[in-house]
Amino acid sequence: MKRPPIIGVMGGGQATDQDIRRAYDLGRLIAVQGWVLLNGGRNSGIMAASARGAAEHGGITVGVLPDDHLGQCAPGIQIPIRTGMGSARNTINVLSSDIVVACPGGSGTLSEIALALKHAKPIILLAFDVCPLFERIGQPEPMPSVQTPEEVILHIQNLLRGKSTSCHYT
Amino acid sequence: MKRPPIIGVMGGGQATDQDIRRAYDLGRLIAVQGWVLLNGGRNSGIMAASARGAAEHGGITVGVLPDDHLGQCAPGIQIPIRTGMGSARNTINVLSSDIVVACPGGSGTLSEIALALKHAKPIILLAFDVCPLFERIGQPEPMPSVQTPEEVILHIQNLLRGKSTSCHYT
Amino acid sequence: MKRPPIIGVMGGGQATDQDIRRAYDLGRLIAVQGWVLLNGGRNSGIMAASARGAAEHGGITVGVLPDDHLGQCAPGIQIPIRTGMGSARNTINVLSSDIVVACPGGSGTLSEIALALKHAKPIILLAFDVCPLFERIGQPEPMPSVQTPEEVILHIQNLLRGKSTSCHYT
Amino acid sequence: MKRPPIIGVMGGGQATDQDIRRAYDLGRLIAVQGWVLLNGGRNSGIMAASARGAAEHGGITVGVLPDDHLGQCAPGIQIPIRTGMGSARNTINVLSSDIVVACPGGSGTLSEIALALKHAKPIILLAFDVCPLFERIGQPEPMPSVQTPEEVILHIQNLLRGKSTSCHYT
Repeated sequence: MKRPPIIGVMGGGQATDQDIRRAYDLGRLIAVQGWVLLNGGRNSGIMAASARGAAEHGGITVGVLPDDHLGQCAPGIQIPIRTGMGSARNTINVLSSDIVVACPGGSGTLSEIALALKHAKPIILLAFDVCPLFERIGQPEPMPSVQTPEEVILHIQNLLRGKSTSCHYT
Repeated sequence: MKRPPIIGVMGGGQATDQDIRRAYDLGRLIAVQGWVLLNGGRNSGIMAASARGAAEHGGITVGVLPDDHLGQCAPGIQIPIRTGMGSARNTINVLSSDIVVACPGGSGTLSEIALALKHAKPIILLAFDVCPLFERIGQPEPMPSVQTPEEVILHIQNLLRGKSTSCHYT
Repeated sequence: MKRPPIIGVMGGGQATDQDIRRAYDLGRLIAVQGWVLLNGGRNSGIMAASARGAAEHGGITVGVLPDDHLGQCAPGIQIPIRTGMGSARNTINVLSSDIVVACPGGSGTLSEIALALKHAKPIILLAFDVCPLFERIGQPEPMPSVQTPEEVILHIQNLLRGKSTSCHYT
Repeated sequence: MKRPPIIGVMGGGQATDQDIRRAYDLGRLIAVQGWVLLNGGRNSGIMAASARGAAEHGGITVGVLPDDHLGQCAPGIQIPIRTGMGSARNTINVLSSDIVVACPGGSGTLSEIALALKHAKPIILLAFDVCPLFERIGQPEPMPSVQTPEEVILHIQNLLRGKSTSCHYT
């Protein structure tokens, strides 16, 4: 069996309308590519939007919940992984993703970017400007940083072809 | 979106030929029902067999790995959740399952039965005789215990219909 | 620096008066030996009693809490480890103990015994009769099973001297 | 029983000589105050140095290891918490600390700062300039940032007196 790539979409529980639209479109495009979308599973912000975008276009959606129940699970999540582990699930989000896309978020999202760097996961920043810090702290080269979901997809396609691409578009 | 039920199949990394066959058939029947199969993800014993049975019949298979990599992931696993958490992932196995089926196993499987009882998850024993201890220890009624994968499916169907069924067939 | 042995004391959040007294005495004796007592940290049953027994006799007490806060922490716990991980902390309880003592409990305690077996931690049962199941399931020899805290201490002393002792007294 | 404050000291496994000296001194001063030092437990960099500083001055030292064994535990750690959970233990480091001190480090340390912000733990930066990013991202006020272990101690004393102090010295 060939495994579909798992694309982790991280981002805040609170988000602007524009970020919500981008996250929805990103979910949609991930589904259209036949990739699995994985996120933090909660029914808010980037998580809810990206899951909905993927689910409404036939994609498989995995939500790694901090909770041990489904009370706050996003409706677009098809496969809820209930960890009951709170923020420790951020580590699972990152480790389970073949590629991590970071949308705008707060300290939780920053922890996921940091953990992705630690575990050498490819990261793509979508309209989220965090480069300076992470580049200075032991990060050899800038993370790709783009402004549209379509550019994220192109980056992922390149990564999946084994062409590591770290040029950035900002 | 309607979420498919997630059926957790627990059991040993080492297993007899008969148990392997049962696990394969259970995976197959779970897939045919349109349910999601979740297990511990490793490429051995009950995990590998149940994943293969489901995957070869079009089912969605989720493996919650103790590892942070795919080196020992069963080929039948479509969605590997890499936890990097060792045995702590047993808790995730249980919490993420709507219904737990326990096949023969060792101490890891016993820990999952105990955790399932703690979190009030419905459990069905498949050819695995552990009742006396768990019944004595704070367990109000016997766990259903059956000998064939087909009986497991009937039990799950009853549970999903909201008909709690705890009669056992042993 | 020489590390003191860490003795894990597992057992139920609900317990009989006799079990509470035994747990208190066990905590006291562990402290007198200069060993560290580790338990699940909650303010109930075996956890609260064993922590109190150790703390009132000058011992170091570590509580590995399922919570991310101190709201339900036993007063006898000097060092509360806040995991926020729910039942996944049972794995930490076991891995962090050099020797595990299992007092009467429910499914949570059974999960800890199972995990201790999985990770080859020495286990001593204190007035808790679980042998038959675990002995049948891949357990090579019976776990030592005793009726008094004093016998537990003797067993631990033997284990620390490197004299594995698996004779049981029941 | 009055619980001593638990001071978490985060920082890199690799560190400059100057950072090592600062970490040692910080550990020493924490011990002299009668506080518990908690860190990531490994035998390298800031972890090894701060544990040694505390242990050599009679302090209690707790190491929350990513491992399930003691093979890489710093000699200065008196109480090793073996999690077997890899980077997920970073969450435990933060949750178990009453106050977090961040020394220079890499992506692991950044993840701990982010998690500390998420869980509203007081943070003090010791010779580690990360303010701009975290301040911009949903952080209401700058984290205190100091250059000497002595200043860290003063900050902690103020925090323990309930005088929240967020002026920074950089």
